[in-house]
Amino acid sequence: MTHGHPPTTFIYASRSADLKRSSMRKEGAMVRWVRWAAAVAAVFLVGFVIGESPMVDVVLMGWFARPTSSPAQDEGTSSRYLRTLLDEMKPDNIRAHLRKFTRLPHLAGTKQNLVYAEQIKEEWLSFGLDSVEMVPYDVLLSYPNKSQPNYISIVDQLGNEVFNTSLAEPVPQGYEDVADIVPPYSAFSPKGQPEGELVYVNYGRTEDFFQLERQMGLNVTGKIVIVRYGKVFRGNKVKNAMLAGAKGIIMFSDPADYTAVGVQPYPDGWNLPGGGAQRGNVLNLNGAGDPLTPGYPAKEYTYRSNPEDGVGLPKIPVHPIGYHDAMHLLRNMGGMIPPNNWKGALNVSYRIGPGFTDTFKTQKVRMNIHTNNQVTRIYNVIGRIRGAQEPDRYVILGGHRDAWVFGGIDPMSGAAMTHETARSAGKLLSNGWRPRRTIIFASWDAEEFGLLGSTEWAEDNAKLLQERAVAYINADSAIEGMYTLRVDCTPSLHTLVYDLTKQIASPEEGEAGVSLYDSWHRRDNWTSDRDAPRISKLGSGSDFEAYFIRLGIAAGRARYTKNRKTERYSSYPVYHTVYETFEVVDKFYDPTFRRLQAVAQVRGGLVFKLADSQLLPLDANEYAGSLRKYALSIAQLAQTHLEEMKLYGVTFDALSSAVENFTVAARDFHVRLQTLDRADSLQVRMVNDQLMYLERAFIDPLGLPARPFYRHLIFAPSSHNKYAGESFPGIYDALFDIENSANQQQAWQEVKHQISIAAFTVHAAAMTLTQPA
Amino acid sequence: MTHGHPPTTFIYASRSADLKRSSMRKEGAMVRWVRWAAAVAAVFLVGFVIGESPMVDVVLMGWFARPTSSPAQDEGTSSRYLRTLLDEMKPDNIRAHLRKFTRLPHLAGTKQNLVYAEQIKEEWLSFGLDSVEMVPYDVLLSYPNKSQPNYISIVDQLGNEVFNTSLAEPVPQGYEDVADIVPPYSAFSPKGQPEGELVYVNYGRTEDFFQLERQMGLNVTGKIVIVRYGKVFRGNKVKNAMLAGAKGIIMFSDPADYTAVGVQPYPDGWNLPGGGAQRGNVLNLNGAGDPLTPGYPAKEYTYRSNPEDGVGLPKIPVHPIGYHDAMHLLRNMGGMIPPNNWKGALNVSYRIGPGFTDTFKTQKVRMNIHTNNQVTRIYNVIGRIRGAQEPDRYVILGGHRDAWVFGGIDPMSGAAMTHETARSAGKLLSNGWRPRRTIIFASWDAEEFGLLGSTEWAEDNAKLLQERAVAYINADSAIEGMYTLRVDCTPSLHTLVYDLTKQIASPEEGEAGVSLYDSWHRRDNWTSDRDAPRISKLGSGSDFEAYFIRLGIAAGRARYTKNRKTERYSSYPVYHTVYETFEVVDKFYDPTFRRLQAVAQVRGGLVFKLADSQLLPLDANEYAGSLRKYALSIAQLAQTHLEEMKLYGVTFDALSSAVENFTVAARDFHVRLQTLDRADSLQVRMVNDQLMYLERAFIDPLGLPARPFYRHLIFAPSSHNKYAGESFPGIYDALFDIENSANQQQAWQEVKHQISIAAFTVHAAAMTLTQPA
Repeated sequence: MTHGHPPTTFIYASRSADLKRSSMRKEGAMVRWVRWAAAVAAVFLVGFVIGESPMVDVVLMGWFARPTSSPAQDEGTSSRYLRTLLDEMKPDNIRAHLRKFTRLPHLAGTKQNLVYAEQIKEEWLSFGLDSVEMVPYDVLLSYPNKSQPNYISIVDQLGNEVFNTSLAEPVPQGYEDVADIVPPYSAFSPKGQPEGELVYVNYGRTEDFFQLERQMGLNVTGKIVIVRYGKVFRGNKVKNAMLAGAKGIIMFSDPADYTAVGVQPYPDGWNLPGGGAQRGNVLNLNGAGDPLTPGYPAKEYTYRSNPEDGVGLPKIPVHPIGYHDAMHLLRNMGGMIPPNNWKGALNVSYRIGPGFTDTFKTQKVRMNIHTNNQVTRIYNVIGRIRGAQEPDRYVILGGHRDAWVFGGIDPMSGAAMTHETARSAGKLLSNGWRPRRTIIFASWDAEEFGLLGSTEWAEDNAKLLQERAVAYINADSAIEGMYTLRVDCTPSLHTLVYDLTKQIASPEEGEAGVSLYDSWHRRDNWTSDRDAPRISKLGSGSDFEAYFIRLGIAAGRARYTKNRKTERYSSYPVYHTVYETFEVVDKFYDPTFRRLQAVAQVRGGLVFKLADSQLLPLDANEYAGSLRKYALSIAQLAQTHLEEMKLYGVTFDALSSAVENFTVAARDFHVRLQTLDRADSLQVRMVNDQLMYLERAFIDPLGLPARPFYRHLIFAPSSHNKYAGESFPGIYDALFDIENSANQQQAWQEVKHQISIAAFTVHAAAMTLTQPA
Repeated sequence: MTHGHPPTTFIYASRSADLKRSSMRKEGAMVRWVRWAAAVAAVFLVGFVIGESPMVDVVLMGWFARPTSSPAQDEGTSSRYLRTLLDEMKPDNIRAHLRKFTRLPHLAGTKQNLVYAEQIKEEWLSFGLDSVEMVPYDVLLSYPNKSQPNYISIVDQLGNEVFNTSLAEPVPQGYEDVADIVPPYSAFSPKGQPEGELVYVNYGRTEDFFQLERQMGLNVTGKIVIVRYGKVFRGNKVKNAMLAGAKGIIMFSDPADYTAVGVQPYPDGWNLPGGGAQRGNVLNLNGAGDPLTPGYPAKEYTYRSNPEDGVGLPKIPVHPIGYHDAMHLLRNMGGMIPPNNWKGALNVSYRIGPGFTDTFKTQKVRMNIHTNNQVTRIYNVIGRIRGAQEPDRYVILGGHRDAWVFGGIDPMSGAAMTHETARSAGKLLSNGWRPRRTIIFASWDAEEFGLLGSTEWAEDNAKLLQERAVAYINADSAIEGMYTLRVDCTPSLHTLVYDLTKQIASPEEGEAGVSLYDSWHRRDNWTSDRDAPRISKLGSGSDFEAYFIRLGIAAGRARYTKNRKTERYSSYPVYHTVYETFEVVDKFYDPTFRRLQAVAQVRGGLVFKLADSQLLPLDANEYAGSLRKYALSIAQLAQTHLEEMKLYGVTFDALSSAVENFTVAARDFHVRLQTLDRADSLQVRMVNDQLMYLERAFIDPLGLPARPFYRHLIFAPSSHNKYAGESFPGIYDALFDIENSANQQQAWQEVKHQISIAAFTVHAAAMTLTQPA
């Protein structure tokens, strides 16, 4: 399918070519011939050498089988172990792990989340991992005040509260006696009791606020905005509201965005009930990790900035509500009726305000927020399987453990399969396998508070990771729909993902004998680009962020998803509510647990191949293809401003030329790989280093403009939506800002600047693929 | 002397230890026994395998000599080649190279400097380097306006110029017909004709301005300051003058700082004549490289900021003068007489002003500066010898070629020996040698304009260098005195420098049979620290800056120097004047060229050992020892503020603990090295990677406060003097600022912050030395 993979056969042919090239090399082909010949003679001496080493038999087998140390044979062994690993991962086990770790709420920083951490540590050790350690950090978390609940009121002109939003979600059946269910809140909201008129701003996106201000002529200064959840990360909504001058922001889940057609609300189905509300942090960290220790791990001795100087903390109160409560706030709103794309599915007119209408004109809205920020100890669990040949090369399988409540989907559907992968890998170890490279299993803490556990560990280990990490596979929520596979990953992993999914069975009913690849392909073809299953860009919003966007480690994530063409709701309906239980998975999303098994096989299989292949299964040609596509696409985006581009002398020529350069370098690199002498361990290491460092080549230590911890120049979220990955984000944001800038000259200079930086970076990446000296 | 170097003998013993440890390893000891036994049998088959490969003989030799591929033998061969290299470098050749490249002025950006570049390229190719290329960049340079000369006047109350400083230095004998000698100027001075009263501020250091303002009660706002050259980098003086509000700054060379006792002025001796003036750039780049393209290489397509936004450009006119001219400006100055340490050696009273005294009261000083900044093409010459085993590991020998005029000392004394090293290495190549790693020879351009050529190339190749560079050896001026060797390098190179200098002969008369080490040791013992020759910290002011301080590549420099105890002048007297000719070296500094030979052998020997040793000759224990010393010293510096430290809770405990941690990690690392299986090329590569990346571990991508391109947290210049290297510069600067800060609370918080960052970095560096997984 691509030029990516060198042949593993034709060993004789490649060796003879080698002979001519490498007269300088001490471990040349002739030497191997000498050894082979000598080995033949050595049979007469075998009695002499049989000793205490258990390796001797294996080694002698090797000697007789082939005249060289045998990478091809190793690959065969490795493939058999991959099969064993995939077959070892069982639906029932995943179900049992999920059941075990979703009985109690385990919010970051709570006792129960530490209990689960200790349990995971003990079990990983019992599975046979070489080492497992707890790694604590002291980070800024945020909790509601237990004695002063958060809520929103409608107050009359006397200041009496005539309506209050609910203080908690109705607890689902079977969980009535559970303590410590944190009520819905916006983590890191400042305290405050702002009172004012409501303004409805649709999803609260940058473009929604522009439309409100420019087309609807409404200024929200001093108002409380109410926006619906969805489309963009909630932190972006809060930032937009702050920038627009609002003094508070309320976010609600509209049925248009959080219910699927024909599905019952939980517990009779998997839709969001009216009393459910989405928890979540409202930070704008841009990858900084702990707000008080940006750039450095939050250890005991670490300097902490003053809480008011913390990175990304919102300055206005924020609170989330469900759609039952939202009805009360919206139904009497006045002002103009917005365009249809501002209207949700509630039986109200979605007037934008400001304030209420008619007889309710004198009523105001008051937010009552008493949430506390608090430096709290969190715990990552880090397990390791030491690599046999290259212990200093790391492949990481990491996902978080902390949950808003039970974490039935987020994150325990992922954590359960990481657990099953660790168990299965341990089983292989006991069968004599050991990966070529080191595998690191991570159970992150405090992901929900800004990816804190994973980011602090990345900061703590930045040097080691930068120099040694081959890849990071994310293990958050494994299912958000019942339709097919979804993979977001760096382009160099495309080929591996395709190869691997061909070796995994479709989990769908009636698809016996069909591969996951084929099942996925027929459901989500990458039509306009190529005839293969769609793979998307990585955005942010989960723990791969620091590894991919800050450190430049090849990364990917996989999960089961909905049908993106027909199912229009955001995320999955019960996301971040108390209704994310074990049962929502067991009854609705994956009763056989075969979907979760398939996802586990994808994640675990990626880790296995990255850790155990002699030659790293990373494909630079795929990166080249993606860069070509992105360069074209960003140039097309700019074409809407043809006149200004001419006026200010903006061209994408340097970028195109860099991408061309990269394309040639990638192609030549993979051609050279085909004649690589795989028996020469230094040569293999050298090309593997080139492959490993390919992703690193796109990292700029200076970061993207005003986002020092977003350092990946090819992939990062735009400044306007943390969830979605943009390609060439520096250029993208500069183009986005053209619209808002009072100084067009300067805004276009910034576009030129960003094109120049991107072009240079792609050129530099091409250099890393050319011959090393 | 240290624990650093593993034994190369006792191979049997270490192999047997190995056997027990490494039953997982396929290339274990048993295997080698099998091969050895097999090889014995293989003699009967030799006829069968003799073929076209020239390696066969060598390989068979190896097989018979030892039962393993023989790192020890390789080391022996390597040592013999080192001897050959050292003996190959000849005084007469260095003299001839120096003569050849100092006949004409070759300022950066001029035709002649390109001619020399092309000549160097051709000669390096003829020496046998594998490749040599010219690498151009378009950077901001600065030249006087040829039709409007720069000078300084004393003007009377009518505005008449009653005295003008000289427009050029008297040209030395033999060079009368030379065109294109650029007159003394301060590169990057803005244009301007400020007029005002003079204020004398000693050396223009931060502490001099403080003393002037606080103790002498004199404000320089709107004045023209006059300062003497010396003690700190001239750019720091200019920055201080700007910050103090001056509208111009004049710098002069005082005889106290630029003449040696009992020495005649050039051409009768090597002292500075009264008509000589020191050229030099007055930027405050802090490592940014080209002022218009900070962080990125100045290629054709690169975005350039507006010239007025260039990094580090001074905002007030600056001009340098000699001491004859300085007499005229100083002798009639009024105001108070300063303390003795403000007085130079001119026959004036060094009154501080403002302005002139008595009858001269109405006179003012006017600066006439017409210098132009101009984007100009420069050329680096990059030569390569491709490494045989690890072509992807680079050892760089780099020094600049551009000179203010002839460059007799700066830089051609260094360039001549780089030339001789390239020639000698080429000779070795033709004798069958090839280094294990790649050697890169660099002839940098535009060093005098802010280290531009070397910094742009570092920016261009940042990813490759970060991943692959083992060490950078600087090759600027090779002699500044006639007394002994001077070495500034990273601590991990200490042991290698000592080992190597024991293999080099002293160049001094009457020291036949004495090693350079012993000659150096007896002249400059590191008394208070240890009984060994003194080695200093790297500061800045030459081309190693981007490699060491930005990228964290182990670096060092060596030159012949004066007696620091008895010779108190700054730099060497004719520094940056027209009197830096071939003759100043040939007649005074090194008539036999044996001192330059010895320095060449140090530089070339360092490169050889770093490129050719199987195990990198870097010593982590020495780094640990230095860190201990620096941690103690910075803590002692803070002890002058014991009360405030108590008040604000400042302690150095975290740093001490980190250094302790690092010390243990380094010791354990070197202990493990002793049992390393040197026949296992992957294992050797892994520990070499740890050694190579040790220096990288001290790099913080966020940089030092307000200096994003100074990223080395252990070594960088302080903000107050670019020339001098400070250890823990972040903490040092924070402590320095305590004196000036209006907000003590905040200033001490910054000290705490910097201690925390340093402690973390040292901890992280320790981690890179522990077992890889």
